[in-house]
Amino acid sequence: MAGIDILIVHGTVITMDEKQMVLADGAVAINGSEIVAVGPTEELIAQYQAAEVIDASNQIVMPGLINAHTHNAMSLFRGLVDDEALETWLDILWKAENQFVNPEMVRIGSQLAYAEMIRGGITMSVDMYWHPDIAAAAAREMGFRLMNGPIFIDFENAPDGLAPQDRIPWGREYLLSLIDDPLIEPSVMPHGTYTVSPISLEGMYALADEFDVMFITHASETKAELATVTEQYGCTPPMHLDQLGMLSERTLLAHCIHISDDEIELFAKRGVSVVHCPISNLKIGAGVARIIDMRQAGIPVLLGTDGAASSNDLDLWKVIRMASLLHRGVNLQPTFNTAPEVIAMATSQAAQALGMGSRIGSLEPGKHADIIIIGLEHLHLVPLYDHLSHLAYSVGREDVNSVMIHGQMVMHERQLLTIDEDELKAEVRELAENIALVRD
Amino acid sequence: MAGIDILIVHGTVITMDEKQMVLADGAVAINGSEIVAVGPTEELIAQYQAAEVIDASNQIVMPGLINAHTHNAMSLFRGLVDDEALETWLDILWKAENQFVNPEMVRIGSQLAYAEMIRGGITMSVDMYWHPDIAAAAAREMGFRLMNGPIFIDFENAPDGLAPQDRIPWGREYLLSLIDDPLIEPSVMPHGTYTVSPISLEGMYALADEFDVMFITHASETKAELATVTEQYGCTPPMHLDQLGMLSERTLLAHCIHISDDEIELFAKRGVSVVHCPISNLKIGAGVARIIDMRQAGIPVLLGTDGAASSNDLDLWKVIRMASLLHRGVNLQPTFNTAPEVIAMATSQAAQALGMGSRIGSLEPGKHADIIIIGLEHLHLVPLYDHLSHLAYSVGREDVNSVMIHGQMVMHERQLLTIDEDELKAEVRELAENIALVRD
Repeated sequence: MAGIDILIVHGTVITMDEKQMVLADGAVAINGSEIVAVGPTEELIAQYQAAEVIDASNQIVMPGLINAHTHNAMSLFRGLVDDEALETWLDILWKAENQFVNPEMVRIGSQLAYAEMIRGGITMSVDMYWHPDIAAAAAREMGFRLMNGPIFIDFENAPDGLAPQDRIPWGREYLLSLIDDPLIEPSVMPHGTYTVSPISLEGMYALADEFDVMFITHASETKAELATVTEQYGCTPPMHLDQLGMLSERTLLAHCIHISDDEIELFAKRGVSVVHCPISNLKIGAGVARIIDMRQAGIPVLLGTDGAASSNDLDLWKVIRMASLLHRGVNLQPTFNTAPEVIAMATSQAAQALGMGSRIGSLEPGKHADIIIIGLEHLHLVPLYDHLSHLAYSVGREDVNSVMIHGQMVMHERQLLTIDEDELKAEVRELAENIALVRD
Repeated sequence: MAGIDILIVHGTVITMDEKQMVLADGAVAINGSEIVAVGPTEELIAQYQAAEVIDASNQIVMPGLINAHTHNAMSLFRGLVDDEALETWLDILWKAENQFVNPEMVRIGSQLAYAEMIRGGITMSVDMYWHPDIAAAAAREMGFRLMNGPIFIDFENAPDGLAPQDRIPWGREYLLSLIDDPLIEPSVMPHGTYTVSPISLEGMYALADEFDVMFITHASETKAELATVTEQYGCTPPMHLDQLGMLSERTLLAHCIHISDDEIELFAKRGVSVVHCPISNLKIGAGVARIIDMRQAGIPVLLGTDGAASSNDLDLWKVIRMASLLHRGVNLQPTFNTAPEVIAMATSQAAQALGMGSRIGSLEPGKHADIIIIGLEHLHLVPLYDHLSHLAYSVGREDVNSVMIHGQMVMHERQLLTIDEDELKAEVRELAENIALVRD
């Protein structure tokens, strides 16, 4: 018998592998940070001697969810300004950022986001925010998987105090610091085409090329953005990026609400991926992205909550469900974005599009152990006819019982193991007392 | 000091009264089934001697939610058929109904729905389903408030075994049995204009008039329904009802997705109310109702989950949030359906439209004590800048700690008090084993 660290047994194991294998009484064997085997409980029990055995009876065992677009530290601003026009909303938020963004704020806000996401079964988020080094340190401390990277914006008085001309060298240094980091995945993150000049964008894309990492930016989120960019460059944000040679398989565009048929065709041709954040998009009145058209064109569509300043919470189950429901309703088509499809968009397909398909996104030997265990006892999951249907249409964040990231249990039976939740809440509330004053 | 049964103290009391009064450290005094006082904790403590004091510190105290359109017993069919075309979905569901609807099924399915709804802070639902007497008995037993009534459909082989010609006398008898019922609110419920003949509709409307109760039916939910009715009667479902003289203040129409400007004007003129069920509407690809236009015309819009066969769960918080988000996104307007507005649609405005405004929907002396207590400790509610924003955009069913209906605690600190949850789940699972076979 081979000795291993953890054996999860007796779960309904939804692997999200290419064959969509589901095991009715399944087990997952984990050693160190890695999944070493997935199979029937009986077989794996006979094969492995585990230091710890976790009983997942009457529970679903599946890959952790990937939240492909967030601004984590903005969780401190959740509910700070709602029900306002886009301009008022942005004004207050930018005022809050200018006044409150600092390393300590980013640490606390990021930890709040990681803790909320872990509770909801998210094992990795793609995070764009100031002080990414601080966000990364907080993620390592909590055992949370993060893709982040240097953020670029051409503001002279950016909240992080960096001048535009210093960002490329600073970015290179940060990317160098992430080489071989087990939990932090590097990327390059210009804010958008309306906030970053073509010259700056070129420097950043070169950096992404140099380090062979994702190039992630906002594009075509609002009509106002579209108008600004079109006025300045004579074309839309995606077309502008294409003219600069920046649409490729390493490109991940957030939102893409207002895009044309030509742009969809171009994305498919260039291998661009898109992150869909329907809850945020609807909340701020930005619109409804053409997700069905994009998916039919073969464009990988990932799912994100966006930051809590617009989405209010970081609940990817709500986003998964919305990604199915919204496009059915708008297109009058109840067979679009089925349960297995939207679950794949939040797991296996997300991992692939982020260039991490060989490492996460499904439960398969050799992959990192990013695993969530979901209870089926709550009344809203009774009766149970189809596990994937429940995952897409009924499961909520409160059903996630246990979460493992990179082989480490970070939540066990609803108890967070890598952070003191009460202490964190006290820190958040203290900070928020001052932040609240920004509305006056 | 006046002796009373229950005093809830130290909560943030959101009354949802006409003045939108909110008390920061508020109390609610309850005697029997009635609210006798709402005010500052200090004042009410000095004034009342309560048999039981409930500490609502760091919690919201507010009126219970009203789920204005459901088919409760269909909770037994949740997840039975998803991701299918409307016809396939209906075929399988009707097959299941024909095979499984009986009094025992309605009892178990209704109890499952009530239990799920209580857990999610719903204190009343408007329920349209077979065997309403059984559903009512189950509601009385669990202390759940229900509006239901005789259901009418012109099928010779209806699942409840009643012939069309027997329904009016049966309906009258049932309505007589509800007179002065403290928990069950009578109404008359024809299924829809495509399933009930004009002659039957006339009998039912007369019955609603005779008993002075609501007349509730489905209208303009799908394009298929619209085509059927238009072919048969030369006009749309609402216009058909109007020709029959059945649009009035006692009329509540569920869905109303495909309606014209003229129909909106007519609804406003006649005093008709509409129930919006966005999650169900989107899920089955029915479309997006013109809620903003209706509300701007002054039509009361209530919120419903619809039955779990289409909505999968009975979570009105999700519906509340969707009612805000969806119409902002579709109309590109972030100031539509604000947090206070959507909360009112699920409480005070719903009660008014149902003709129960003097009895429920807000926390005011003289009203029935339908009260929910909501925790603010979960991470997705931290920090807290605005209580109503959190209620609309972050609170979930899992945040509801305690629920009182008609002065009776039915859930206290997450424990259901009027039903054995494990026993109920066992009954549901046993039934579901057979129901599952219907898909084969």
